[in-house]
Parts: sequence; structure tokens; C-alpha cells
Amino acid sequence: MRAITIEYRVPYADTDQMGVVYYGNYLTLFERARNELMRAVGYTYRECEADGIALPVVHAEVDYKRPAKYDDLLEVKAWVRAQKGVRLEIACEVRRKGEAELLVSGFTRHVFVALADFHPCPPPERLLAAMADD
Amino acid sequence: MRAITIEYRVPYADTDQMGVVYYGNYLTLFERARNELMRAVGYTYRECEADGIALPVVHAEVDYKRPAKYDDLLEVKAWVRAQKGVRLEIACEVRRKGEAELLVSGFTRHVFVALADFHPCPPPERLLAAMADD
Amino acid sequence: MRAITIEYRVPYADTDQMGVVYYGNYLTLFERARNELMRAVGYTYRECEADGIALPVVHAEVDYKRPAKYDDLLEVKAWVRAQKGVRLEIACEVRRKGEAELLVSGFTRHVFVALADFHPCPPPERLLAAMADD
Amino acid sequence: MRAITIEYRVPYADTDQMGVVYYGNYLTLFERARNELMRAVGYTYRECEADGIALPVVHAEVDYKRPAKYDDLLEVKAWVRAQKGVRLEIACEVRRKGEAELLVSGFTRHVFVALADFHPCPPPERLLAAMADD
Repeated sequence: MRAITIEYRVPYADTDQMGVVYYGNYLTLFERARNELMRAVGYTYRECEADGIALPVVHAEVDYKRPAKYDDLLEVKAWVRAQKGVRLEIACEVRRKGEAELLVSGFTRHVFVALADFHPCPPPERLLAAMADD
Repeated sequence: MRAITIEYRVPYADTDQMGVVYYGNYLTLFERARNELMRAVGYTYRECEADGIALPVVHAEVDYKRPAKYDDLLEVKAWVRAQKGVRLEIACEVRRKGEAELLVSGFTRHVFVALADFHPCPPPERLLAAMADD
Repeated sequence: MRAITIEYRVPYADTDQMGVVYYGNYLTLFERARNELMRAVGYTYRECEADGIALPVVHAEVDYKRPAKYDDLLEVKAWVRAQKGVRLEIACEVRRKGEAELLVSGFTRHVFVALADFHPCPPPERLLAAMADD
Repeated sequence: MRAITIEYRVPYADTDQMGVVYYGNYLTLFERARNELMRAVGYTYRECEADGIALPVVHAEVDYKRPAKYDDLLEVKAWVRAQKGVRLEIACEVRRKGEAELLVSGFTRHVFVALADFHPCPPPERLLAAMADD
């Protein structure tokens, strides 16, 4: 399955008084990339929820190498790095657009759960098929 | 009905690169004060929702006079400034603890709506009674 | 001076448990639109700060008419509604892309201040010229 | 060195449309606990910055076991789990007040850097002394 890349312009809201993007805000950036990854596959997270299945995060790791700053135009690359049983892992990398230097990287681990009872459940067939075709 | 005051310690997360609290974050601070105002009255917003009624914000105004900064210990005062029919207005003032100078003030206007259909509805009897007793 | 419009895809991060965008997050959305308004004029806020001038918000008002939801593709329109002396007012309107219905509107009032002492100062010549040419 | 515990009431702002605290917001909660850990030691992060030293996060990990919800009164416990050379690791655990069940745990790794050039530097003597005395 291919990786996708989104662009993101850093607002003042994301910065802190050290003049860089606050460390917690990268997790929102990772989410933005995950959303577009699913859209690119052809099965959005909104459709996933409409099918009664959610993908809560059970683990997250982030490596902060270089800070992003206000008004930077960032590129966030995301791809599925593992999928087995009820688990899904999505990796992300953040760079300034057109630059090779890695600013921030990390991944999130998700578990497919039924919205009805929040118990783990098999991934939606449509998502597995879409991921296989992609 | 009395005013209540909450204390709030400003984290780095709330600041921006100008070294002050980002302007949007005061609306979360206003919400924290509103939550405690309802708790002080004896009818929490959680109970309100459990009774099938929500209080979405339909209008907000904020005046920014002086900036709050990282690690400041703030006091946020909140009180009902108007309640008529399906409308409720709550005013807020932000100061540093123990200081008279007003940093930020504002208010939010809310409408009571039924969670079932999001149509306006009368305020919960329990809230009106609690506000009258207070 | 023309109005500009930005697109914004709503992440889960912006929603709250009522299933809609949290009211405070629109102020960040307004900021995203203001940033692009200045870029469109040819004088970014980053350049403004580099010239020693900042534009803190002194007043904000927001009208919430209809809620935006997760994964909505929004359009935020922004324009200068007033500029006189050290004051600048920027208006914003939020709609779903391609829809006429107004979801949220509001404005922010700013004062030009020197970064050196945070005292009010005249607007940068470059910005006034750019706004006049636009 | 002892662990400290802070209390935190979850506002609507922290929740998402799944009805739980958004996963990125725990990193702000971790920061709130770190701030109070340093205050308890007798050397606040504000003093650290005033001494020309910052403590940016270089790595963060979070395990999400059970969700926190709106209006929950949380306890966040924080302690130094490692300090060697320019590195500092602080662990955090989140529970509902008075309950044994662990909701969220994790840690952040920091590097002491000089604010002048953002190069790694030895920890402030005052902090090491305070941590040894504690």
C-alpha cells in the first residue's frame, strides 16, 4: 500500500513560547495524515464509523528531531507499517516541503473496535479489500 | 446567584510564540469556569446532558486587555449575567491570583436545546430551582 | 481589498463529545484565514514580525449558527472590514465547501504594536501599500 | 526523588466525538504534571528558562488503556524515571481520582539545552541539588 503525503501550514496556535510547534500538536498532525491515508485508500474514517467500527489509538510514539516553526509549510507522510488481526500501525514523518531533513517521526497503534460495545473486532472487509487493491 | 472563581495554572501548551496565552485558549478557560459555576449551583453540565438537554454556545465575545503568561496562576470568575426564556448568558473575567488588574473578560450566550433534536427547549426545572435557591 | 478563502478539513481533534467542532477552535480557523489573507496581499505576518511589528488580538466576536462536523471540508472567507489608525478588523465566515449556508461568522480586532515595547504603532508602510494596491 | 500527583478536571474542550479525551491532549496533561514536579522540587521550569536552560522533549510514548471522559476528576502522577548526563526522563500515570485502574501511562525524554544556541548542556546545578535533596 502506497504512502500518502499531506501539506500543512503551521498557525500561531500550534506554537509555544519557545517559538516552535508544541510537542503535543504533532499528534493532531498525525491524525490529519491518517485521515487522508484512509481517504486515498477509498474508505474514509467517517465511513468506517458509519459501518459501526472505530479505530482508537492504544499506543503512540514520537521522535522530535528538529522543530517546526510558525508559517512553515510542512509535509506529513503516512503509511501502514503493520496490520495483523485487530491491530493496525500507521507511521508518520514530518518535513518542511521540499526539504529532505526529517523533523519529527513516529507511529500510532490502533485496534479495530465495534462502536456498539468497544470490544475488539475484525477490520472492515471494505478496508482490507481497499488496502489490498491499493 | 453568586459568582464562582476557579484557579488555573497556565501550561506551555497554552502559550504561543509571542510568549503569551493564545487568544483562542481563553474560550476553554471560560468553559472550565462555566463547568464549576454549574457544579456550585448543584446541577452539573454532565447531569444536564443526562437529562437530555444541552447548552451550545451561540455567541461569544472576548476582550483582551493584558496577556496571561506561562506558569501564571490565574483566577477566572464566572457568573450568570442574564437568563430569559431559552437563553442563558455567562460572563467571565480573568486575573492573576491576588491581583486586581483585569487581563481578559468576555461572555458566552447559550441556548437550551433538547439533545434529541437540537431544537430550543425550556431550561431544566432543576437548574432554575437551583439558581433561584443559590 | 479582496476577500480570500481557504479550505480546511476538520480533524477528530477539533470535535467534542457533542459531535461538532468545539467553539474555541473556530478562533484558530479564523487565524488560519488571516494568515492567508496577509500572504495574498503580499506581506505575511511572519514578515510583519520580522519588521518588528505584531498584531495582537484585542477583541473577538463569534456567532455560531450551525455546527461544523468531523471530516467536513470547510471554506473560511476572510477580509479586512476596517482599518483606521493603529486598528485593524478582519471578518471571517465559515461554510461547507460549495454550500451557501453560513455556519459561523465573526471578526477580530487587532492593534499594531512594536515588538520592542508592545506599544501601539502605525501600521507597516509595506502593508498599507499592499492593501491599497490589492 | 518523590513522585507528585496533580488533579485535573476534564473540560468539554478535551473530548472528541467518540465521547472521550482526544489522544493528543494527554501530552498537555503530562506537561501540567511535569511543571508541578519541578515546582515541588523547588526549581520551576520558569526559573530554569530564566537561568538560560530549556528542556525540550525529544521522545514521547503513551499507552492508552482506558478512556478518560468529560468532567472526570483525574489524578496525574509524575516522577523522574531516569537522569543521566544531558538527558532526563519523566514518567506519568493517569487515573480517576480515588480509583486504582490505570487509564493512560507514558513518559517523555528531554535534553537540557542552552537557550542561547539550543545545544545540549549540563543540567542546572540548582536542579540537581534540589533533586538530590528531595
